[in-house]
Amino acid sequence: MDLGTIFGLLGAWTLIVWAILAGGSLVWFINGPGMILVVGGSIAIMFLAFPASIVKSLFKVIRNAFFFQSKSIEKLIEDMVHYAEIARRNGILSLENTTKDIDDAFIVRGIQMAVDGSEPELIEQVMNNELENLIDRHSLGKSMLDALGRYAPAFGMIGTLVGLVIMLMNMDDPSMIGPGMAVAILTTLYGAVIANAIALPIADRLARRSSEEVLYRTIIIKGVMSIQSGDNPRVVEQKLRTFLPSSAMAAKDQEAAA
Amino acid sequence: MDLGTIFGLLGAWTLIVWAILAGGSLVWFINGPGMILVVGGSIAIMFLAFPASIVKSLFKVIRNAFFFQSKSIEKLIEDMVHYAEIARRNGILSLENTTKDIDDAFIVRGIQMAVDGSEPELIEQVMNNELENLIDRHSLGKSMLDALGRYAPAFGMIGTLVGLVIMLMNMDDPSMIGPGMAVAILTTLYGAVIANAIALPIADRLARRSSEEVLYRTIIIKGVMSIQSGDNPRVVEQKLRTFLPSSAMAAKDQEAAA
Amino acid sequence: MDLGTIFGLLGAWTLIVWAILAGGSLVWFINGPGMILVVGGSIAIMFLAFPASIVKSLFKVIRNAFFFQSKSIEKLIEDMVHYAEIARRNGILSLENTTKDIDDAFIVRGIQMAVDGSEPELIEQVMNNELENLIDRHSLGKSMLDALGRYAPAFGMIGTLVGLVIMLMNMDDPSMIGPGMAVAILTTLYGAVIANAIALPIADRLARRSSEEVLYRTIIIKGVMSIQSGDNPRVVEQKLRTFLPSSAMAAKDQEAAA
Amino acid sequence: MDLGTIFGLLGAWTLIVWAILAGGSLVWFINGPGMILVVGGSIAIMFLAFPASIVKSLFKVIRNAFFFQSKSIEKLIEDMVHYAEIARRNGILSLENTTKDIDDAFIVRGIQMAVDGSEPELIEQVMNNELENLIDRHSLGKSMLDALGRYAPAFGMIGTLVGLVIMLMNMDDPSMIGPGMAVAILTTLYGAVIANAIALPIADRLARRSSEEVLYRTIIIKGVMSIQSGDNPRVVEQKLRTFLPSSAMAAKDQEAAA
Amino acid sequence: MDLGTIFGLLGAWTLIVWAILAGGSLVWFINGPGMILVVGGSIAIMFLAFPASIVKSLFKVIRNAFFFQSKSIEKLIEDMVHYAEIARRNGILSLENTTKDIDDAFIVRGIQMAVDGSEPELIEQVMNNELENLIDRHSLGKSMLDALGRYAPAFGMIGTLVGLVIMLMNMDDPSMIGPGMAVAILTTLYGAVIANAIALPIADRLARRSSEEVLYRTIIIKGVMSIQSGDNPRVVEQKLRTFLPSSAMAAKDQEAAA
Repeated sequence: MDLGTIFGLLGAWTLIVWAILAGGSLVWFINGPGMILVVGGSIAIMFLAFPASIVKSLFKVIRNAFFFQSKSIEKLIEDMVHYAEIARRNGILSLENTTKDIDDAFIVRGIQMAVDGSEPELIEQVMNNELENLIDRHSLGKSMLDALGRYAPAFGMIGTLVGLVIMLMNMDDPSMIGPGMAVAILTTLYGAVIANAIALPIADRLARRSSEEVLYRTIIIKGVMSIQSGDNPRVVEQKLRTFLPSSAMAAKDQEAAA
Repeated sequence: MDLGTIFGLLGAWTLIVWAILAGGSLVWFINGPGMILVVGGSIAIMFLAFPASIVKSLFKVIRNAFFFQSKSIEKLIEDMVHYAEIARRNGILSLENTTKDIDDAFIVRGIQMAVDGSEPELIEQVMNNELENLIDRHSLGKSMLDALGRYAPAFGMIGTLVGLVIMLMNMDDPSMIGPGMAVAILTTLYGAVIANAIALPIADRLARRSSEEVLYRTIIIKGVMSIQSGDNPRVVEQKLRTFLPSSAMAAKDQEAAA
Repeated sequence: MDLGTIFGLLGAWTLIVWAILAGGSLVWFINGPGMILVVGGSIAIMFLAFPASIVKSLFKVIRNAFFFQSKSIEKLIEDMVHYAEIARRNGILSLENTTKDIDDAFIVRGIQMAVDGSEPELIEQVMNNELENLIDRHSLGKSMLDALGRYAPAFGMIGTLVGLVIMLMNMDDPSMIGPGMAVAILTTLYGAVIANAIALPIADRLARRSSEEVLYRTIIIKGVMSIQSGDNPRVVEQKLRTFLPSSAMAAKDQEAAA
Repeated sequence: MDLGTIFGLLGAWTLIVWAILAGGSLVWFINGPGMILVVGGSIAIMFLAFPASIVKSLFKVIRNAFFFQSKSIEKLIEDMVHYAEIARRNGILSLENTTKDIDDAFIVRGIQMAVDGSEPELIEQVMNNELENLIDRHSLGKSMLDALGRYAPAFGMIGTLVGLVIMLMNMDDPSMIGPGMAVAILTTLYGAVIANAIALPIADRLARRSSEEVLYRTIIIKGVMSIQSGDNPRVVEQKLRTFLPSSAMAAKDQEAAA
Repeated sequence: MDLGTIFGLLGAWTLIVWAILAGGSLVWFINGPGMILVVGGSIAIMFLAFPASIVKSLFKVIRNAFFFQSKSIEKLIEDMVHYAEIARRNGILSLENTTKDIDDAFIVRGIQMAVDGSEPELIEQVMNNELENLIDRHSLGKSMLDALGRYAPAFGMIGTLVGLVIMLMNMDDPSMIGPGMAVAILTTLYGAVIANAIALPIADRLARRSSEEVLYRTIIIKGVMSIQSGDNPRVVEQKLRTFLPSSAMAAKDQEAAA
């Protein structure tokens, strides 16, 4: 779990609620029909704009953004070098036993194909295909959140226009103008909060998560291909280390030179 | 037919109507001249911005978005492998009879060309050309809906400006200011609803539909080319399976390994 | 002439005028200084933003958008095949007489170069160069209309700000507030109408026109190159037909197969 | 000097001043602190957003946009062909004297390198490098003007918000509300005028100027390379003429054919 | 340190404060809860939108933008030529001592690898990798500032909507309407100032800094590769000088020709 994400989300909402309480009452800011219009309307539009099966995955996508565990690339390279050593020492078939202890299904699938003696081109094609499917899923999740970040303010504006018309048609009682306008404004507020304190920042986060995971899996693909072709574990390490952020790499480099 | 689409469209409109009824009367929100200006003006501008023949296809495009039947890619691959088996067993000419039972005109056209002994380059060129025409038609449909999503709010704003000027010129009777302003605001509301609850979400949907159908037809082209070149049905399957989403592919993979 | 374009333009303007008459008087919406500011200011800015020689071509560009005659691609292919037959039967020099009856200066120029025995590379380079010049001219026309679609609303807003300041400085007479504000709003209305009912839709139209004409000329270039290299008329037809929209092509296809 | 540019700039400003005088007094539109905030603030932000050395060149960039002399490409090609003839007749070294009469430093530098016997690859690299530096400078100038077109309205809005707060805090004297609001609005007007009647149109113009000059220098590079390789003057002309706009080229073509 | 940056930042803020003091009191513009909402909310959203480790580096990124020292490319090329001379004269191993006097860790690392006898492909790969990491870090810094430039105004608007609702609910006391509205507007002002006088201009600056540093390091990489391959110092200079802005290069050129 990622404390920054939780802290960010709770922090932003706490500040909004606190700003409300600093000058008024929370009750003033709750308008049932307005909330239903903005939240319900945005969700309905998501079902119009995206296939139902995909909208249902939206919650999974959001949950992923919160509970995603950044995996260590250093550790991954060490593991891949370790598998290369086993393959070099005992033959590639001996990796079959090793796969039982590996958590990452993507690594397992790759090594299994190498053990089964699949053609290198096929292994690479199958793994790249899976990687592209992942990228597609991520970019679809991001585009859904971006769409929510557009449609929620739009429905907020629609609600405000509806509220303004109702208020303007009821101007006989001047004392109702203020509250009527306040209610009309609320849906714009709901839309702005949904977009800027939920949908758009999570979309930003997802884009970043995606590029991290793509790097991670690219290293796995290169590693499996290197192991499959019987590369020396040192060569495997050297090839994979070029993907490391440079500070980590430089450290390793000086170590090696020492 | 796609229940999600219908549910999304009806849901969004029901919520808007319900929000109106929660605070006022539906009659307040109906302004004949305003509706004619926004709806009619947007349609007229579509005829200015796009050739008439294309605007007329807009309804067909929208209908397609609603009644599009997602086709199973698994099923398609099975079919293509089946045709490959027939061609392998009885010669490619024997596919002539099979084409009578095939629904998809695109598959029929491809196989027919293979049966007729056309050059592989020509078959691929003709089928790719048809695929690009499809992509063009889809992207034209999307760009029309995007244009509608821009021009409808613009005409809503024009209507509101017209209404405001009329109201400001009639300020002798203060009791008319409220209703006059309400009427002026209505066209902005119409434009926002047309854009955000019809045009833009359907444009999003169309983009997604298009990429689904492009994948479907790409698999058909690869399959026909593979059958034409006399590939073994197993090879045909292997080639086409690389287009499958990875979860489905992995399942097949383990099956094959078992 | 294109009826859709005329219908669209007249329709949109008629609806705006009708909406004005439905609630007020056309005189209220005419403000000489405001019109001069928005129309004159936008035109002046066009001369600042684009070379004078190009701004002067703006009217020609707009006229083209209205009077452009969509040319039949089917007919073009038939013609090119016809020229190929003549070249095949009587030698390429015999096309010299044919060029006298051809309307399209682009085809004439291409065939003339082929008759003169120019190198194929030179013919292709010269014709492609002319095509790129056409694309440049079209995209320049579109970018001028897009600029007009940005600067007209900007000058509308400048006019409204000027009007508001004047109104606010004259608030001694409350009865003048309404009309003063109405006048101020008018320039925003002018800017919105110029942008959304003239400049931007015509820019959209131009983009479409351009891609149609590029396709048309690309087919001419391919055809001339094919004739020049002495291709069989059937091969010329087959090469050019791959540019046809698929429905038309499929029809031809079945015909050929029959 | 370019009359269109001057006419455009003066025209737009004259119209704005005239619109002010048509309804009010120029004095109402002058607010010292507001002008200093918008103009000064925008300039200060330019120093924050761009290196000081580059901001200082902004005036030079703007002056260039006004006093840029469109050079004739026809004339350039004639000159290059003329140099090719000299080189052909008297040897390339004889061009050394010719360079004294050439105004354009870019041509001189290219020919000088050819005369000095530099490697063709080096000549092309050095000249292309200089061309890319020019493109960088132009695009930097454009991006500065675009930034000014964003920051001036932003500071206009900041000024208006400051003015509104001051006005709202001083509402004891109702007669001051109008003038207070008028003053507040002025900075938005200043920002809009700076952006739309100075910065953005000049940025548009610069983009166009840049592409003209890039074409001009590209022809020079091709010409120098062609002269250096000892091409026949006719071949030099033919190569360079493919860069001409097609109308001019067609004319030449028929001449040549005649 | 960069005086332009400091001057720009201080200048813009001084002008804003001065504009406030010209018409009102600084106290009117300080609203504790509003500041906490906009500043705190934007920061919280940054933690939601970006990994915590990266947000923490934001201050470092901003500091870099201010204290970045533009390095002389002329001087760099002289140094690289100097190292090439040493390598040529005393063998590449003799550079080992030289590295002790070099400040730039990137040059040291490159030369060290050359001295250690690493493969040229590996040196280039490692250095390019480090360069791409730098580009990634810079573009991440820019995208964080761009996000701040979007979220700060969004929270400003949220604060204003909250303030407006509170004001509208408290309309019993008309004397409080002005100050209530003033307070509501303040958060929009805070958001606009944070975006336009801090975040967005620094993002612009960072983009420029990044391209300067990328050029600097590209020259280092080319230089090290050239030294490693034993190039003549004159060739090293000629290769690196092609990266110089053209004015500087021309000067050198004439010098060399003299």
